[in-house]
Amino acid sequence: MTKTSPDDPDNGLIHGLTARRIGLDSHDQAVILTRRDCLVCRSEGFAAHARVRVECNGRRIIATLYQIDSDWLEQGEAGLSESAWQRLGLSEGDTLHLAHPQPLNSLSLVRARIFGQPFSPGDLGIIIKDIVAGRYSDIHIAMFLTAMATRALNDQETRDLIQAMVAAGDVLEWSRPVIADKHCVGGLPANRTTPLVVAIIAACGLWMPKTSSRAITSPAGTADTMETLAPVDLDLAAMRRVVEREGGCVVWGGSVRLSPVDDMLIRVARVMDLDAEGQLIASVMSKKIAAGASHLVLDIPHGPTAKVRSLTEAQSLGDKLGAAASAFGVATRVVISDGRQPVGRGIGPALEARDLLAVLDNQPDAPEDLRQRALALAGELLELSGHVATGKGFALAESTLASGAAATKFRAICEAQGGLREPPLAARQFPILALRNGQVSSIDNRRLGRVAKLAGAPGAPAAGVDLHVRLGDSVAIGQPLFSIHSETAGELDYAREFAFSNGDIIELTPCR
Amino acid sequence: MTKTSPDDPDNGLIHGLTARRIGLDSHDQAVILTRRDCLVCRSEGFAAHARVRVECNGRRIIATLYQIDSDWLEQGEAGLSESAWQRLGLSEGDTLHLAHPQPLNSLSLVRARIFGQPFSPGDLGIIIKDIVAGRYSDIHIAMFLTAMATRALNDQETRDLIQAMVAAGDVLEWSRPVIADKHCVGGLPANRTTPLVVAIIAACGLWMPKTSSRAITSPAGTADTMETLAPVDLDLAAMRRVVEREGGCVVWGGSVRLSPVDDMLIRVARVMDLDAEGQLIASVMSKKIAAGASHLVLDIPHGPTAKVRSLTEAQSLGDKLGAAASAFGVATRVVISDGRQPVGRGIGPALEARDLLAVLDNQPDAPEDLRQRALALAGELLELSGHVATGKGFALAESTLASGAAATKFRAICEAQGGLREPPLAARQFPILALRNGQVSSIDNRRLGRVAKLAGAPGAPAAGVDLHVRLGDSVAIGQPLFSIHSETAGELDYAREFAFSNGDIIELTPCR
Repeated sequence: MTKTSPDDPDNGLIHGLTARRIGLDSHDQAVILTRRDCLVCRSEGFAAHARVRVECNGRRIIATLYQIDSDWLEQGEAGLSESAWQRLGLSEGDTLHLAHPQPLNSLSLVRARIFGQPFSPGDLGIIIKDIVAGRYSDIHIAMFLTAMATRALNDQETRDLIQAMVAAGDVLEWSRPVIADKHCVGGLPANRTTPLVVAIIAACGLWMPKTSSRAITSPAGTADTMETLAPVDLDLAAMRRVVEREGGCVVWGGSVRLSPVDDMLIRVARVMDLDAEGQLIASVMSKKIAAGASHLVLDIPHGPTAKVRSLTEAQSLGDKLGAAASAFGVATRVVISDGRQPVGRGIGPALEARDLLAVLDNQPDAPEDLRQRALALAGELLELSGHVATGKGFALAESTLASGAAATKFRAICEAQGGLREPPLAARQFPILALRNGQVSSIDNRRLGRVAKLAGAPGAPAAGVDLHVRLGDSVAIGQPLFSIHSETAGELDYAREFAFSNGDIIELTPCR
Repeated sequence: MTKTSPDDPDNGLIHGLTARRIGLDSHDQAVILTRRDCLVCRSEGFAAHARVRVECNGRRIIATLYQIDSDWLEQGEAGLSESAWQRLGLSEGDTLHLAHPQPLNSLSLVRARIFGQPFSPGDLGIIIKDIVAGRYSDIHIAMFLTAMATRALNDQETRDLIQAMVAAGDVLEWSRPVIADKHCVGGLPANRTTPLVVAIIAACGLWMPKTSSRAITSPAGTADTMETLAPVDLDLAAMRRVVEREGGCVVWGGSVRLSPVDDMLIRVARVMDLDAEGQLIASVMSKKIAAGASHLVLDIPHGPTAKVRSLTEAQSLGDKLGAAASAFGVATRVVISDGRQPVGRGIGPALEARDLLAVLDNQPDAPEDLRQRALALAGELLELSGHVATGKGFALAESTLASGAAATKFRAICEAQGGLREPPLAARQFPILALRNGQVSSIDNRRLGRVAKLAGAPGAPAAGVDLHVRLGDSVAIGQPLFSIHSETAGELDYAREFAFSNGDIIELTPCR
């Protein structure tokens, strides 16, 4: 008799359950639902909340088991979350095989670091492979992130982590030596410079293939805003065609699989509210390296409500990002900017799109702060990439915008991505008025964002908030402070109710 | 207009959903299930996997949101996990109010320790209060456990943690100064000494109110074994009546709420496979202090497959447990024992009950190792509590057992708990035979446990494994090594199949 281990994949007792699609959205957590009296579970000793290995069609995933008493499932059936359904490539009625997961050996490397040892070369590669394969539960990922935060990653560990994260996903390769990219650390509301920078850079003849994210907790992500102007769900081949034709694109990063582990880590880190510098550096750099960037400008806004609080902190972070980038042959320049108030006027996909079209088209009422930020970043990129001499970048960016070349390029990119669209205008608009005379002394970005979300953003692209005042403006009683844009009466009610009961979102101090 | 915060509990926008009981077992994780097109979720911006506050009947919990596309739920309905249903005290059709959870401020204390600061006095109390209120997700608990494991808890932190864990649940008070207790660190299979020790101690006139756990990953817990002999689901008042009448009890700890945070931490720590000493000490001591123990004997088995690997480790852990106990006025004595092989013969609730009845009744075939262990622990407790002089404990324990006084007391305790029962005998038994002559050189406890679980233990109380040989025994070809006990043909098949394909669970080396 050959010696086998109980955790050997071929050695477990494996029994079939019939797959049933139940449309369960559990985000990216894989969930399998069985009846509580499921015979397979009972014989295997699977209890609720257990991690089980689910196999079908030659694929296998690790899922969390929940059990149900009601008659939603027949005996012998198992319901799966959409994430599990997709990853297994299932069809209704497929036979699933359940087994105990193999032991998670890489966890011993995480435990060793918790107890004080550094990661050895190769350790992070093993851990990241297990994470991308879905073998780490949220609990394990939280343990890994905490272990990394406890003692800052050293340079070797940082490089190993970046390398492992890049290797865990797709890596884009381009036929040109200069690939421009930009990244903003710290999510300033409505800081929608990306489409402007891409338009200017591409109009100048450089390549800038940009992938952006959708909103997770904010009223709009760059991909949501861009989607009101053109399709953004492009696959890799379509994205490459756009870049080869127009030199730039702004597509949703979710369609291409660049550093997928980053998304898995960020989701858990957000719940932990833990900003560990090493992880932030690996997060940014792994995406950029996987995207094939050669020249990268980093926007680091600092301010009391921004992610980076002080100038010193911004400079230190910029230095470390630059060092990590240069280890992978990526040239970087850091732009440290003012992060004290939101950018532009619109908050919500279509309203932000309107602002950036105003800048592109040189409209007199275009938000000047958005314009200045975009020009500064584009200017730095033009210099960094060697396209113009130092000191000449801003002027070239400005003339590219002023001449209309950037606007033309932007519309060409939209056409190449599948067709230029007109951003929608909300059916319902409601102004929130000043209740007295005064000067705007503070604007609560977080609660303004909440109003925009209650109004329907980003799910309803036209929904959001249009801000009519800025810090320092003098306003008269009855003058509109901001307008709520909404597509349904119900959502308008929710947003209005919240705005009325939060009369201090925009604070006014008496004028003297 | 008064100044309000968006996280003020009275300030959120609150909308109703109709509660529907779906019998979802998600262990102790609270889950709420809505349709993906749920209007409340959309307007509040709740996405799948969000943490939401659910209120009803003046109670509130934090639950994890999942969303579903199928027609299992009507628009306006929400399904809840049983854990959520119980904690909210719901009835079918109740109206639920959903809101965003308040910010988890105590997480900043956890983050501070991750970044190198010790906990200040009071910090752990704040964190533990949030955990017992269900405000920490598994991710947050994993973060907290990792933060504590990174740098060993100092004495002050250990005491604060114990204090906070005790304060988070019920604390038992007894009318006698001496309350005996025992605890075994490290889960040796079938080490079922507790009912024997309770019987001997109570027969000697001391009080020993013992709460025990059910199996989580093993084929039987002490509460499962005891349940084959008497009811164990006693509430606090019933438990008190038993102890006041008979001096002892063995009840399930889940009915009394002693250090409930401990159970929450252990569940996550088990997934992390993280044994942090400070947490182990707080886990043991918080339960004992909450149970009102004054004199405690600790059984620390050590061996290559036990939790504690070496004698040195066992001594160091014993010292630390003793120091923590003495800070709370609990006298302790540590018994370091051999943990190299399982105790007794039966594995599974009823089979283990049979072994302990054999010891109680002084049957000639009673497992001697189980008897010796129980006598050693009872003897130490009798000495520690001052009931007999040092050196006299073992003899008194032995005579109490030999005279039948312990057996009489045990049956009286069972009657007081609700009636003595006869442990069931499995309908089906199947022997696994030696395939050659040889001497037993190793017994794989882990895989033997798996056979017992596949056979149906602990859900089917009569199911399990009956071991016929011990290390060093000489066996002849065709002699039974162990028997599988099962209540159904299907479970017997599963267990047998696994045993056949794992012929080395009991290894035989040729005799010379």
